[in-house]
Amino acid sequence: MIKPARALLLVAHGSRRASSNEEVRCLTTRLQQAGGHQFDYYASAFLELEAPDIPDGLTQLIAEGVQSIVVVPYFLAAGRHVVEDIPAEVERVQKKYPHIDIQLLPHLGAAEGISSLILNIAQNT
Amino acid sequence: MIKPARALLLVAHGSRRASSNEEVRCLTTRLQQAGGHQFDYYASAFLELEAPDIPDGLTQLIAEGVQSIVVVPYFLAAGRHVVEDIPAEVERVQKKYPHIDIQLLPHLGAAEGISSLILNIAQNT
Repeated sequence: MIKPARALLLVAHGSRRASSNEEVRCLTTRLQQAGGHQFDYYASAFLELEAPDIPDGLTQLIAEGVQSIVVVPYFLAAGRHVVEDIPAEVERVQKKYPHIDIQLLPHLGAAEGISSLILNIAQNT
Repeated sequence: MIKPARALLLVAHGSRRASSNEEVRCLTTRLQQAGGHQFDYYASAFLELEAPDIPDGLTQLIAEGVQSIVVVPYFLAAGRHVVEDIPAEVERVQKKYPHIDIQLLPHLGAAEGISSLILNIAQNT
């Protein structure tokens, strides 16, 4: 049996600054380099101001044959975008493709490891 | 000789949502618990919408007798806030207290460890 293809989709806010969106795409490349075969696809999408948006990002992965997608909100604060907007966009695509396993993770700021990361960068000063 | 007192100041954007600002204060407490004696003080300040603002946050630490402050911008993207606003606020206080060592670190999104953190939360799914 062939293992179903899995994808990681990093969802960022999106910015009017091209360099800020580029930072997100570079991070996606770094994720791919570091994660290797953990996922078959690594992609990014943006809530606003930059393409692809979340539905397009998810749909493109589904079109590639991906059957399982982990969505990571690249946000530090549990504001309206994290609590309402991103879940609503994901839900819209999930309803259209009920056979695809889409899992929306908590936002990055909720990760246990954030404090260690901050202490690490602060101690090398 | 007494070792000069050091502080870590976490600088977040600030939100209209009280829960979002509270998340930042909770993180500061977690930093204190995890970092222990790495710093003598752990505090947070906000760029806007919540007190203390950055000058107040820095000045309060200086009033406590802190001589060295590491400022960590709790931001993922190098937007205007990170590139212009935070450095300007820090510089304003630095000019007023030239004998205090204030070190502004790169924003959290620039940290090498961000990709490992994302892969960690994504692989436990």
